[in-house]
Amino acid sequence: MINFELDERLAADTFPIADLPLSRVLLMNDARYPWVILVPRHASISEVFELSENDQQQLWQEATQLGDTMKAALGGDKVNIAALGNVVSQLHVHVVIRRHSDATWPAPVWGIGSPEPYDLDGQAQLRDQLLALIDGLNG
Amino acid sequence: MINFELDERLAADTFPIADLPLSRVLLMNDARYPWVILVPRHASISEVFELSENDQQQLWQEATQLGDTMKAALGGDKVNIAALGNVVSQLHVHVVIRRHSDATWPAPVWGIGSPEPYDLDGQAQLRDQLLALIDGLNG
Repeated sequence: MINFELDERLAADTFPIADLPLSRVLLMNDARYPWVILVPRHASISEVFELSENDQQQLWQEATQLGDTMKAALGGDKVNIAALGNVVSQLHVHVVIRRHSDATWPAPVWGIGSPEPYDLDGQAQLRDQLLALIDGLNG
Repeated sequence: MINFELDERLAADTFPIADLPLSRVLLMNDARYPWVILVPRHASISEVFELSENDQQQLWQEATQLGDTMKAALGGDKVNIAALGNVVSQLHVHVVIRRHSDATWPAPVWGIGSPEPYDLDGQAQLRDQLLALIDGLNG
């Protein structure tokens, strides 16, 4: 993985998983949902439109494809994809697999309830699944 | 504008503005934020990855560019772009211009507080601004 400067709050709330061509994939430490965050490995920018047009396409494609494969592999009812960044200004995109049975369905995941940190086994299992999916996307 | 079948709840909560190459642009009837929704004029699908790869790129590009121009023209601090669809399953993308001074900053806009419907003048003014921006994007 390439070194770049990750926002401290993102670093504290997540586990690094692997790199896609443009983005670092982070696993949100919240076992309520399969929830990853993509961070383009760029100098500090905040808005998608600050990327080059090619990188904009790449970022959205990475988010869309990862959401697709996660939903298929992990089981889920809906993919939520969002670039918000009101609290953490470093550009990042949320990809969340939602289930009708999850803790807060159908509300969005932000600012509702409390995160449930993974235990070691749960984190290791999902990390392995995500690594296999990302390997597949990276061809 | 091309006719297609818009979800009843989206229709009830919004005003139609204009069409981009792929999407119908709707103005959310909530004066707390400049908030538009893009709906690809397709048969009923729910996930971005159900679009062709070209249309995926087109949808994200329309959302990104409209967010960029809205932020510049209307004034704002952050663009929020999100494809959620947990309540309304018809594929749609939110583009919201956020300001540090807005009613719910920095929380996301969904499920917080109550919408403030536009008065006629406010709606007409923003509609005219949006039409000019969309004309610009449509070249």
